[in-house]
Amino acid sequence: MAAAGRRAQVSLEAPAVILIEPQLPENIGATARAMMNCGLVNLRLVRPREAWPNERAREVSSGAHEAIDKAQVYPSARAAMADLTRVYATSARHRQMIKTVMTPREAAAEMRALAARGERVGVMFGPERAGLENDELSLADAVIRVPLNPEFTSLNLAQAVLLIGYEWYQAGDATPPRELVVNGTRPAEKEELLNFFDHLERELDASGFLRNAEKRPGMVRNIRNLFQRASLTRQEIRTLHGIVKELSSKRENRPRRRKTTASD
Amino acid sequence: MAAAGRRAQVSLEAPAVILIEPQLPENIGATARAMMNCGLVNLRLVRPREAWPNERAREVSSGAHEAIDKAQVYPSARAAMADLTRVYATSARHRQMIKTVMTPREAAAEMRALAARGERVGVMFGPERAGLENDELSLADAVIRVPLNPEFTSLNLAQAVLLIGYEWYQAGDATPPRELVVNGTRPAEKEELLNFFDHLERELDASGFLRNAEKRPGMVRNIRNLFQRASLTRQEIRTLHGIVKELSSKRENRPRRRKTTASD
Repeated sequence: MAAAGRRAQVSLEAPAVILIEPQLPENIGATARAMMNCGLVNLRLVRPREAWPNERAREVSSGAHEAIDKAQVYPSARAAMADLTRVYATSARHRQMIKTVMTPREAAAEMRALAARGERVGVMFGPERAGLENDELSLADAVIRVPLNPEFTSLNLAQAVLLIGYEWYQAGDATPPRELVVNGTRPAEKEELLNFFDHLERELDASGFLRNAEKRPGMVRNIRNLFQRASLTRQEIRTLHGIVKELSSKRENRPRRRKTTASD
Repeated sequence: MAAAGRRAQVSLEAPAVILIEPQLPENIGATARAMMNCGLVNLRLVRPREAWPNERAREVSSGAHEAIDKAQVYPSARAAMADLTRVYATSARHRQMIKTVMTPREAAAEMRALAARGERVGVMFGPERAGLENDELSLADAVIRVPLNPEFTSLNLAQAVLLIGYEWYQAGDATPPRELVVNGTRPAEKEELLNFFDHLERELDASGFLRNAEKRPGMVRNIRNLFQRASLTRQEIRTLHGIVKELSSKRENRPRRRKTTASD
């Protein structure tokens, strides 16, 4: 933890995170960590309760020193957002206000689009216990509310920041939703798979497993389907050949179980 | 905090959260809180380092007592997943394994689909520092990896659980992505808006603001567009009528600025 803070992969257009009157340095540190998880480094503190810079916040940030060291302190929400063009307020509660309310996912898509055309955006988070005041909400373009279990909405500050940052990151991320990691080997070609089927079925015929001629075609199809579903790699096909060979050779070296049973 | 744990809105088919060798009771408590945020209560602990039940875990759960009190302890990952039909392993690192890797969003959609047809699913999380062992990963159907800043992937246990749970919750949630909350009043009908335009433009004509006949049509259109963009409610239209009326009457009761300036 004494090591220098790791440098995050950040984009200049990433949203500023504005914490209004944060109380605990631990929460600021955890917020910085969540920010850097999501490639955010622009942290703005409005009237933090404890003195800033704060060593405790730096300690609990798990190395998110870049966000901690660059954090700026402001006297008011107004001052903290002065250079931004669009500001979102986070709120868990329904308010007596006429306001656009967005999900984090929708807001993230909008922030990406705004940033792409050069706008500077920010997201405001209220103090740990009370959340944002209505006056602060009225300074924001729109409210972000996270859809969560309505009977248990208690979300700590860093977790709220994490969910907004997570959606921001996902909105610009191209990770394939699902991928078979083949780790140096490559997916088997069908001929390799079909050669394995030949080997397996030959041994199953020899062992008597497929001796019921009426049921044999259905059993063979079931076995083939099972292995098809596994999306085997070339290396795995070789392993399966080895397994079948080894099991068969053991069978050949000892009396077959069925015969043994019959002679008992 | 002494109050009884709030009862979460949970679904029976929600995934089990399996923590392998969790070290700190604080992390188990924070995990329970994150779970209940997302409507999950099925918590399974495999060889927790500290004794269970654990009062410290209960304290830091911020009232997520249902998940804490129902948590079960198991001697092995195998025992903890015995009754499940599909298990996902979370991992931040790339492994030397041939394995399907999914994003939390893709996994959440799959878990919802599986649960809808009666399957019982679970997600496995490794110990705080080391993560899951390869042997444990080999017990899972697929790996979930959260796309995050590759240069700062340090995510604590409860935050990893929160992100998976968040995606599970979103996959079953019907919150509109964007909504104008009108809070008891209703969106203005066009006639109400156009009546306001008439009032405003009449007063702007009277004040001389629109005296340039050539520029007048363009100025009027700009002003109308500005107010159209605000998606005004009926109540707000009334407020704007009041503002225009009040400003106009002040103007009528005092010399016009232009005249004053001219006579100086």
